[in-house]
Amino acid sequence: MSWYVACLSSELGRRRPLGRTVAGSHMALFRDGSGRPAALVDRCPHRNVPLACGRVRSGLLECCYHGWRFDGEGACRAVPGLVDADADRRAHRAIAHATAEFDGFVWVWLEPGEPSPAAPFRFPHVDDPAYATVRRHVTLPAGLHACLENALDVPHTAFLHGGLFRGGREPVEIEVVVRHHAGGVEAEYLGEPRPEGLIGRILAPEGGVLTHVDRFQLPSIAQVEYRLGENHLVDTIAFTPVDDGQTELYAAITFHLRLPHAPVRAAVTPIVSRILAQDARVLRRQRENIQAFGGEHFASTELDVLGQHIRRLLRGSEAEPGERRIKMRV
Amino acid sequence: MSWYVACLSSELGRRRPLGRTVAGSHMALFRDGSGRPAALVDRCPHRNVPLACGRVRSGLLECCYHGWRFDGEGACRAVPGLVDADADRRAHRAIAHATAEFDGFVWVWLEPGEPSPAAPFRFPHVDDPAYATVRRHVTLPAGLHACLENALDVPHTAFLHGGLFRGGREPVEIEVVVRHHAGGVEAEYLGEPRPEGLIGRILAPEGGVLTHVDRFQLPSIAQVEYRLGENHLVDTIAFTPVDDGQTELYAAITFHLRLPHAPVRAAVTPIVSRILAQDARVLRRQRENIQAFGGEHFASTELDVLGQHIRRLLRGSEAEPGERRIKMRV
Amino acid sequence: MSWYVACLSSELGRRRPLGRTVAGSHMALFRDGSGRPAALVDRCPHRNVPLACGRVRSGLLECCYHGWRFDGEGACRAVPGLVDADADRRAHRAIAHATAEFDGFVWVWLEPGEPSPAAPFRFPHVDDPAYATVRRHVTLPAGLHACLENALDVPHTAFLHGGLFRGGREPVEIEVVVRHHAGGVEAEYLGEPRPEGLIGRILAPEGGVLTHVDRFQLPSIAQVEYRLGENHLVDTIAFTPVDDGQTELYAAITFHLRLPHAPVRAAVTPIVSRILAQDARVLRRQRENIQAFGGEHFASTELDVLGQHIRRLLRGSEAEPGERRIKMRV
Repeated sequence: MSWYVACLSSELGRRRPLGRTVAGSHMALFRDGSGRPAALVDRCPHRNVPLACGRVRSGLLECCYHGWRFDGEGACRAVPGLVDADADRRAHRAIAHATAEFDGFVWVWLEPGEPSPAAPFRFPHVDDPAYATVRRHVTLPAGLHACLENALDVPHTAFLHGGLFRGGREPVEIEVVVRHHAGGVEAEYLGEPRPEGLIGRILAPEGGVLTHVDRFQLPSIAQVEYRLGENHLVDTIAFTPVDDGQTELYAAITFHLRLPHAPVRAAVTPIVSRILAQDARVLRRQRENIQAFGGEHFASTELDVLGQHIRRLLRGSEAEPGERRIKMRV
Repeated sequence: MSWYVACLSSELGRRRPLGRTVAGSHMALFRDGSGRPAALVDRCPHRNVPLACGRVRSGLLECCYHGWRFDGEGACRAVPGLVDADADRRAHRAIAHATAEFDGFVWVWLEPGEPSPAAPFRFPHVDDPAYATVRRHVTLPAGLHACLENALDVPHTAFLHGGLFRGGREPVEIEVVVRHHAGGVEAEYLGEPRPEGLIGRILAPEGGVLTHVDRFQLPSIAQVEYRLGENHLVDTIAFTPVDDGQTELYAAITFHLRLPHAPVRAAVTPIVSRILAQDARVLRRQRENIQAFGGEHFASTELDVLGQHIRRLLRGSEAEPGERRIKMRV
Repeated sequence: MSWYVACLSSELGRRRPLGRTVAGSHMALFRDGSGRPAALVDRCPHRNVPLACGRVRSGLLECCYHGWRFDGEGACRAVPGLVDADADRRAHRAIAHATAEFDGFVWVWLEPGEPSPAAPFRFPHVDDPAYATVRRHVTLPAGLHACLENALDVPHTAFLHGGLFRGGREPVEIEVVVRHHAGGVEAEYLGEPRPEGLIGRILAPEGGVLTHVDRFQLPSIAQVEYRLGENHLVDTIAFTPVDDGQTELYAAITFHLRLPHAPVRAAVTPIVSRILAQDARVLRRQRENIQAFGGEHFASTELDVLGQHIRRLLRGSEAEPGERRIKMRV
């Protein structure tokens, strides 16, 4: 059981509930009377209509069919028409998921009815006034592993995103250090020259060699970090699996640059959208083709630096902590 | 096996057959040479094309692929191109369902090839010149039980149809008498004040207390009756199950009022349409959610006065005849 | 294993690959550096994206995700980013199907990785300058047997295509000779008068009796031949099964007439399109109805001269060579 992001804070208002599916669990999200997010199993205990089709009244979630009302803990607070209003309401309870709200994201704990465990992952730098943040929520038509591998894969960028990010010059040979540790794996790219395209030029206006680290952390966090002198960019993604064919991407791209942040944000935002659309398209084709062929049949090279480690971690098997070095043309 | 409504009389013309599915049985309906409705299993015995895709010629149903023709009993009357026209045509028979036409509805007997049994249920008052009738055919995206429970449920009306029917005033406590008998169950509401909304105002222009009875009768009849003095309204619905996720609603709303009938009909018709659209939407959400959760998980209160009796009757188990009283705020 | 048409020659250019499914096998078709057609199993060995989503560069097929490139035999010729470019590439091979290109059609051998066997079926007369040819590719929403039976069935034409081909006059009795031989079956129609409609009038402007033979040949060839004096028309169809519910039709209608060929072609082409659209519609209805009823349940007469022979041949059982005569009104 784990924490997953269920929505952006900005997606959850005070009047309309939100229906979301997290790792196969259907939830109705709403804000209670004090504005705190609540998440109920998205099934009215009475006649099983989705609670997310109802509305929020005075911080209670009201079912659209017969008007039963529930608070953020799932207690039934009204059954319209019932004369003996104190009749055993335990049978009428909805089931609640623990929630948390940090950094502009609403998280849910997957196991319903469990007490709230330790806090979820925190997005770095989003509260630091020296940094600007671009938040994104995109639905990807693929499973969690394919999305994680895509987010942390370098070689595809020169092809799939050619012109937008990487590509466009002769590749140079660099070294990659892969380190794994309990619950995660990371790849550090040593000696990578500035990528072509607008994002590279913003990070390194005068060129130079970047510090670049890609990280995965269980259950579903991907992070790409670039640094050159004072310029610093961290793209942190919390993925939320929906089912085998759909994954939600919640990203906070945080950056600190010598350039003014507002125009950079305006310039970068449409590029991020186009890159995500290209990834979504190839992920859909990959998933549909794997279905058409009845299963995966991958041939990997040493360029596939993180994908197989991530798969092992997702399956629950830990590798010995250690480090490996490979070469790559970038 | 049972009689079910297959279509409104007005839906079945003399030139085009009609394809309908009744409790999983696909039928091609048409009118024979004398105008009587006929129903054949909707599969040409030759190459299995739907007969409902063909056309009616001289009271015979002609398949669109090779032009084979069948009469209302299913006998094959022509095989174009065949030289020995009297060759054994028994092998070429289509299979017929018994039919009946009453009160503006065409009924079919579910078991094909069986002789016509006793007559189907009759809609009350549709032939009485003192009454006006509004007939409706609507497709509901839900199974038979959910549609029956919805049609005969009082508490949802104040929420789902709030403003159109019930809702809008402080509820008062009334008594409900539930009586079951062989093959059916009914609920009589004692002391119910006039509902808010246009329909209530038409029934009881000066207010007052209604006589109100809701009835279910096997296999699929729901009836709601209101009376106040001379004013009388009966909404009779014959449901036709199509499959687990679809049910056809055939209704005759008959009324006798002191007000002139034509303007009442013009005013009531769009309200009925909106109420049915609201019910269809919540029934679809209910069904899809039950599927998403892998089955029903209902918590009932004493307000659910008829639904569980109806389920038992649909499953073939009869309760002892008897009577029960409950309280409800309406 | 068999040869099947994968596309028209004109459908396969030099820049964009073509994704096609032949008898359940997904293939990426492209032209190699010398313009010869190539067919690879449509799954990049690396991350299983369809190769047909990529592009052709210098006669190599490049995957759209990471830019791996393959030649027409499936050898991997580039893995961008890989430093040790001569690393064991056998693990990175794509799998190739043998191909052949004749008569304006590209054929593929169904078994991948097999050496190219004997040549595929040749369409007659397409290279003869005395003949004109109309080529067609149409997708039919039905299985192979239903399409073959439809293409070689005479009695449906007067109904389904009434006004376009046959129909419109009193039928006359003729004789049909059915001959079967190893791998095929044919029906010769003796004494058939000119069909009504434009095609009949083009073939036989002064009327008369046609020579008419319909042929089936394994695995999927249907042919209809008409001759009257010097006038000669052969419609040859190579069907390609896709799956149980879809079949591709590749036709070459070749004709030699005393009339000038260009206006005949202009007049005949839209009629062929309408006839094919009528067949596609009835084949879809037939397939959907057979699914709805859970399987085929055909009643045949002696008018169904070829369908049952074709089914036996498709199932691999050969009949004794022989001949049978039946009567038919046409």
